[in-house]
Amino acid sequence: MAGSTYGKILTMTTWGESHGAGVGVVVDGCPAGLALCEEDVQRYLDRRKPGQSRFTTKRSESDTVEILSGVFEGRTTGTPISMLVWNQDQHSKDYSEIASYYRPGHADYTFDEKYGFRDYRGGGRSSGRETIGRVAAGAIAAKLLESLNIQVKAYTKAIGPVEVAQERFELAECEKNKLYMPDAVAAAEAEQYLERKMAEKDSAGGIVECVIAGLPAGLGEPVFDKFNANLAKAICSIGAVKGFEIGEGFHAAQMAGSENNDAFVMEPDGSVGKATNHAGGILGGMTDGSEVVFRAAFKPTPSIAAEQRTVNKSGEEIGISIKGRHDPIIVPRAVVVVETMAAFAAADMLLGGMTARLDRIQEFYRK
Amino acid sequence: MAGSTYGKILTMTTWGESHGAGVGVVVDGCPAGLALCEEDVQRYLDRRKPGQSRFTTKRSESDTVEILSGVFEGRTTGTPISMLVWNQDQHSKDYSEIASYYRPGHADYTFDEKYGFRDYRGGGRSSGRETIGRVAAGAIAAKLLESLNIQVKAYTKAIGPVEVAQERFELAECEKNKLYMPDAVAAAEAEQYLERKMAEKDSAGGIVECVIAGLPAGLGEPVFDKFNANLAKAICSIGAVKGFEIGEGFHAAQMAGSENNDAFVMEPDGSVGKATNHAGGILGGMTDGSEVVFRAAFKPTPSIAAEQRTVNKSGEEIGISIKGRHDPIIVPRAVVVVETMAAFAAADMLLGGMTARLDRIQEFYRK
Amino acid sequence: MAGSTYGKILTMTTWGESHGAGVGVVVDGCPAGLALCEEDVQRYLDRRKPGQSRFTTKRSESDTVEILSGVFEGRTTGTPISMLVWNQDQHSKDYSEIASYYRPGHADYTFDEKYGFRDYRGGGRSSGRETIGRVAAGAIAAKLLESLNIQVKAYTKAIGPVEVAQERFELAECEKNKLYMPDAVAAAEAEQYLERKMAEKDSAGGIVECVIAGLPAGLGEPVFDKFNANLAKAICSIGAVKGFEIGEGFHAAQMAGSENNDAFVMEPDGSVGKATNHAGGILGGMTDGSEVVFRAAFKPTPSIAAEQRTVNKSGEEIGISIKGRHDPIIVPRAVVVVETMAAFAAADMLLGGMTARLDRIQEFYRK
Amino acid sequence: MAGSTYGKILTMTTWGESHGAGVGVVVDGCPAGLALCEEDVQRYLDRRKPGQSRFTTKRSESDTVEILSGVFEGRTTGTPISMLVWNQDQHSKDYSEIASYYRPGHADYTFDEKYGFRDYRGGGRSSGRETIGRVAAGAIAAKLLESLNIQVKAYTKAIGPVEVAQERFELAECEKNKLYMPDAVAAAEAEQYLERKMAEKDSAGGIVECVIAGLPAGLGEPVFDKFNANLAKAICSIGAVKGFEIGEGFHAAQMAGSENNDAFVMEPDGSVGKATNHAGGILGGMTDGSEVVFRAAFKPTPSIAAEQRTVNKSGEEIGISIKGRHDPIIVPRAVVVVETMAAFAAADMLLGGMTARLDRIQEFYRK
Repeated sequence: MAGSTYGKILTMTTWGESHGAGVGVVVDGCPAGLALCEEDVQRYLDRRKPGQSRFTTKRSESDTVEILSGVFEGRTTGTPISMLVWNQDQHSKDYSEIASYYRPGHADYTFDEKYGFRDYRGGGRSSGRETIGRVAAGAIAAKLLESLNIQVKAYTKAIGPVEVAQERFELAECEKNKLYMPDAVAAAEAEQYLERKMAEKDSAGGIVECVIAGLPAGLGEPVFDKFNANLAKAICSIGAVKGFEIGEGFHAAQMAGSENNDAFVMEPDGSVGKATNHAGGILGGMTDGSEVVFRAAFKPTPSIAAEQRTVNKSGEEIGISIKGRHDPIIVPRAVVVVETMAAFAAADMLLGGMTARLDRIQEFYRK
Repeated sequence: MAGSTYGKILTMTTWGESHGAGVGVVVDGCPAGLALCEEDVQRYLDRRKPGQSRFTTKRSESDTVEILSGVFEGRTTGTPISMLVWNQDQHSKDYSEIASYYRPGHADYTFDEKYGFRDYRGGGRSSGRETIGRVAAGAIAAKLLESLNIQVKAYTKAIGPVEVAQERFELAECEKNKLYMPDAVAAAEAEQYLERKMAEKDSAGGIVECVIAGLPAGLGEPVFDKFNANLAKAICSIGAVKGFEIGEGFHAAQMAGSENNDAFVMEPDGSVGKATNHAGGILGGMTDGSEVVFRAAFKPTPSIAAEQRTVNKSGEEIGISIKGRHDPIIVPRAVVVVETMAAFAAADMLLGGMTARLDRIQEFYRK
Repeated sequence: MAGSTYGKILTMTTWGESHGAGVGVVVDGCPAGLALCEEDVQRYLDRRKPGQSRFTTKRSESDTVEILSGVFEGRTTGTPISMLVWNQDQHSKDYSEIASYYRPGHADYTFDEKYGFRDYRGGGRSSGRETIGRVAAGAIAAKLLESLNIQVKAYTKAIGPVEVAQERFELAECEKNKLYMPDAVAAAEAEQYLERKMAEKDSAGGIVECVIAGLPAGLGEPVFDKFNANLAKAICSIGAVKGFEIGEGFHAAQMAGSENNDAFVMEPDGSVGKATNHAGGILGGMTDGSEVVFRAAFKPTPSIAAEQRTVNKSGEEIGISIKGRHDPIIVPRAVVVVETMAAFAAADMLLGGMTARLDRIQEFYRK
Repeated sequence: MAGSTYGKILTMTTWGESHGAGVGVVVDGCPAGLALCEEDVQRYLDRRKPGQSRFTTKRSESDTVEILSGVFEGRTTGTPISMLVWNQDQHSKDYSEIASYYRPGHADYTFDEKYGFRDYRGGGRSSGRETIGRVAAGAIAAKLLESLNIQVKAYTKAIGPVEVAQERFELAECEKNKLYMPDAVAAAEAEQYLERKMAEKDSAGGIVECVIAGLPAGLGEPVFDKFNANLAKAICSIGAVKGFEIGEGFHAAQMAGSENNDAFVMEPDGSVGKATNHAGGILGGMTDGSEVVFRAAFKPTPSIAAEQRTVNKSGEEIGISIKGRHDPIIVPRAVVVVETMAAFAAADMLLGGMTARLDRIQEFYRK
């Protein structure tokens, strides 16, 4: 059972290990005629690149993408787009000792159980570098959505216990702090919190929020392929995500129906709108024309310098302290991963939404 | 784009509307040789049947399942298992007026936007009756898992603001109260809360928790088909689910790495275990041999008798008050839906897990 | 691994055994708004119904289809269409002795090897009755294609050594003879051939040809999902089909490039056409706007009354003579199966063809 | 709709154009623990490499494969295997004039119709170089099968009208002539035939036959995913294939049931065998333990130097004569493509065959 391909109409197949030759992705099903160059992809990759602040790993990678196929004279051809990033700064020796024991919170043990052995260098396939392929693929999806006036935007909602305050929310602020938080005060507090965790040789988690604006109503399928269900899979497939919620999410469980229901209203332009958006843009698994709003919970980075208890492959209980270059928090770098995975899932469902009505199909083929 | 099929190796395809002839499911990929009769499925369907308490719809349906194929002399044959439940107590007239307006919190508007029109009788395909096919299919998956000593168990974790207290948790208590809560005190409180909501012509939401015990380590795939990602999709595809979390879930976002990491330990029998289970049984997207523990948040029932604002198809803003027979809370009936969907997703990944290692494949085919 | 679902955008999932309660199919992904009633499906099923001539099994089945979901007020709703045909005239006792041995040319042995045992009544899942679900699903696809001015038509090309002569080809003749041959002379000859085979307690095979007219150019994908590759799978998945060819097919292997290439020409209406159609309407795996023409080879019915050698489950070599009601030739009844499977495959690729170009997607969503 | 991925459990996703940076493939779902190095793949690629005889294109490519992921310390890890071959000898200028007209027998026109424009250099995605990814992926599948004692072997059965004679068939002869024919006499005749076609500035087609030996009985699924149906799709997805047949194939249509049925017999070792193999190793869509034997018909190379009629993009009818370096026959180079695609399809179904029986699943997970 494969599992390295995501999507139904628009698909991505990622490959590559942390300390192999490189990492990459093949995007298939991208419509022909989209203007695309490496710079379109690179600016997304740059947002997840390591080494951007003292809160991220010091591994130094330029992460320069090469597009190897599927683009001709500046436009996509409709055939698969293969993209590749070579690995550069691999300190494999840092990892040699990992081969003999199981790091808590990591996939070392489960890889061994599943496959009988593992590429132990830097997490292998479970490394954060696996997300490079996702981000590159999602960058194309984001460009496709933009050509249809659909925008996807993610940001840090919380770092540990420090949350963005709704009354101070300012989206542009994201770009001004290293934590990608749309609230300068919260960002400052969160930085202090992180400093403390780093001093304690510990790590932190957080929450990413994402908004998709401009989607037409009626995307997603009513039963298993609900828009939110496919989004949940896409987002929960990102390493370290432990929770997903849409609209009011877990809070909805405590609300009364009269509070949670969104009244329909007539918009000035004669279209149907909603007075509120507790639903997060989804009714019955299909987009309702409002913004889709969802959140993902990230666990704290499992690699910590503080001593931990574990076992080695000889069956002995031992104490370890993890070396190597690790992010004390992955949330700021994960923002772009959430954003691009959401873009990819949305683009896939947008393409899938074209076959729902016979009258529109007849019109399409009459051309 | 279809969307009525779930699963990769073990699949279910559901069909049927609330007020059509009936509802059903085709299960494909079930291994040959599983003892199966209608009673095995019926006992799960009985748990979701309406009319079991004053908190559920008064629609009266016996929901008797018929197995039409795939079973011969009491055992599954490996070919598709078709199951059918006829609809009986359809008060379609209750719904005739719904055709003209959009109920808040329902899929009326999104169905119209997607398909151009809709079967307006009782929610059509978005009715709770759609889950009958899921439960019937999941019952087979549960039986398959039991034959491998794997148990799936779901219960009500919270009703509105009333939560099960960990110190009073007693699983057997579930069967003793109508809300399926493993805590008698919380159940009593929750009943009072629901009475209040009903008196207010309002409704409530809640949280379902589910535990899968006995899974081998190594199930799920490291990238997109993570065990938790597939589970998230399965659970978020259930109508009214607005959130999904595994292990510590959203709480993990506030924890330090040193708190959230689970130390590996040696078990008395020489196997590797974990001192805690903050991870909810998943590391790197693969099962780690601990219990898989997850939660789903359900929004309050959108159908409420209290007046609400909405619009009709002529573009007028109107006030409505929903008639018909509706559950003030769907959580107690949704417990078995979560349990069976989880069973189905787990069984699918268990079957998918057989091809990971060459040595085991060689052994398999050497027989 | 399932295997009872065909299609990607438009899917069918069939179920049912020869001697179980019934057979059926769930069609998912059918666009909303297609006028559909049971009669639309029934007229296709009537063409494959047994008992229509002395060359078909005497099993008497009315094969009356019921549509259980997915249609509301005479039009498809976009949700799954479940269709069911009850089994009636089951002479299971005819088959009791089959349980103990393996019929040559049948799937008895392979079922036992795969699943460990089998439903031995009348071929179980490998019975010709399995095609009822295909035909019912394909009838819907054919109606969908008709609404886009696309016609699919199959007929008998050869019975045993007797072939339709190109110079006598007259399509309307099909309906006038029991063998569904578009050539009265060949049909008469073929009837004599079949009488001879029946007198010899033997059986015959044949070839079905099918033409799809009116398809737009550009359907099918350039690599694995070529139009002809998907068609090949659809057609070769019909029981008893041993060969598939498109356009000149096997004959093309003997032609020179200069003979086989079709010159492009300008049509009077200014469109691009082809002077000949050796390609059978496919270039590079995509439709070229010409008629798609393909053929399927059917083996002779394996059930024959003449004595044959085989083995029983005790490992003894024995002589058997097959009883029961069997068609000496299945080709005339298979014509509608080929036609509807082709319609289904074509409709699936037609829907899949809507996402190839960004400009057309932009136009679609701008509406 | 994507279409660049083949397989269900074991998948390959190919990418790359004739005159882009390179071509490649990602193989996902390969079990962990298979010994694999680049040489294992290279020896298959060398068999399809251009420039090996006067009957193949003079384009000079070393076609050296690089494995970029999924292998660690000489063994597959269970994660995706990315392989890449850089393009080298690209004479793009040879193709500049192709941009303005449609070559007969090529995909120029259909690409333009589907995507609105095309990468016109050397056939782009429809070039024979697309098969490099297939061969590389299939080489891994072949190695996997070998580790289970399953052998796949293809050879040239016919070149134009010249067929291998059954009485002179000698498999080892394949390696001794440039046409890969297991019959020295036929090979010599075929060479003369090809010389004549080349002198006439024309081209030839042919037939490839393939045998899979050692497959266990019971592979393939009884309905849509029949072993032969999946094989048909895999083989018909190879460019230039116009026909597929298994066992007696089209000849079966002319046989009587008594001739075509294979009697079951007891083998000396107590297993069940067949006296003949007209079925080509498949009964009811499942392998029966005999050799699987199938054939593929290849059309003559459409690129010929002789003048042909066609149209250009301005709608004018013109005469053209194709330049560039083209094979007068592709069959000898296609042999390895058929062999590796068959290996891949077989390996996929072999892995898929592990979940058919509960008793074997229980045994598997009891370990």
